[in-house]
Amino acid sequence: MKEEGPSESREMPKKTGVIRGISILDLVLRMVAIVGTLGSAVAMGTTAETLPFSTQTVLFQAQYNDISAFRVFVIVNSVVCGYLAFSLPMSIYHVIRIKASKSRALLIFLDSMMLGVLASGASAAAAIVYLAHKGNAPANWSAICQQYQTFCERITGSLIGSFAAVLILVLLISLSAAMLSMRHRRF
Amino acid sequence: MKEEGPSESREMPKKTGVIRGISILDLVLRMVAIVGTLGSAVAMGTTAETLPFSTQTVLFQAQYNDISAFRVFVIVNSVVCGYLAFSLPMSIYHVIRIKASKSRALLIFLDSMMLGVLASGASAAAAIVYLAHKGNAPANWSAICQQYQTFCERITGSLIGSFAAVLILVLLISLSAAMLSMRHRRF
Repeated sequence: MKEEGPSESREMPKKTGVIRGISILDLVLRMVAIVGTLGSAVAMGTTAETLPFSTQTVLFQAQYNDISAFRVFVIVNSVVCGYLAFSLPMSIYHVIRIKASKSRALLIFLDSMMLGVLASGASAAAAIVYLAHKGNAPANWSAICQQYQTFCERITGSLIGSFAAVLILVLLISLSAAMLSMRHRRF
Repeated sequence: MKEEGPSESREMPKKTGVIRGISILDLVLRMVAIVGTLGSAVAMGTTAETLPFSTQTVLFQAQYNDISAFRVFVIVNSVVCGYLAFSLPMSIYHVIRIKASKSRALLIFLDSMMLGVLASGASAAAAIVYLAHKGNAPANWSAICQQYQTFCERITGSLIGSFAAVLILVLLISLSAAMLSMRHRRF
């Protein structure tokens, strides 16, 4: 029961190893989530389709920034991506200093805020993507995907990275909580 | 402050008092979130408006379950409300047993899942509510709120309880994490 940073880890090398392993997993998951959110932001942010016909007055074009939910999606994914990059040094610090507890609690707080923001952004976009595919007869909103196929494929695909990052954030919060609870019980 | 509870709390009565106070706050916040999600589910689930005119073939009527995102919203709010009610005994247990750490970590895990689910459901509905108010010219989706005013007021209002519960869940996760980290450092 007298663990103190790396040097005393001889007493409980197994438990220390487990926590260090989870800390490394935390770091790797953050990197994956960075790729996911960055990919989503870029995929959505570069989506535009011009149909191969136009009338004299109207050019048939669909762009992601025609729709507010998609603009919000790009912003939210960029912000969360930036936050995750910013959290990497802290995650590395936790691999080295496995006894850190205050900073783990801080990360849980920040991660849960980002989880709320990212889940919101991803779902708002998903609701509109669903509408673009299916339309809604009672509200008289027509499915636009029949016209803009490439556009719809891109915006649908761009949701994947974002929802993957949501799942990873739930996992990151849970892992941090598990480590806090293990450390309390074991050391 | 002479908290009795577990025998060891005599050593650090002040810190014990703080943790017990936060545990009680956790319990109260859960109750508020139950009211919020229940209110949202009921408000959305009972929303329907029939316009005071009809043609021979069409009855002008708007119902929440015409729109998938609103059906999902009602289900998600009901599920989270049920979960929160289910978590109350655990929260009460934490007020009594302030040393509990495994169950706090479990609550953080479950709370973060529910946070993801609730934020998703609330935002998907919010995206559609926004569309109902503003419409979207490029996609040729018209604002339906000009016709269905009462319907739109109800669905807009029903979002409030849900988003309040999202904020409360972020707070609950953060409080649990803070308690885990405090307990580790102090006991």
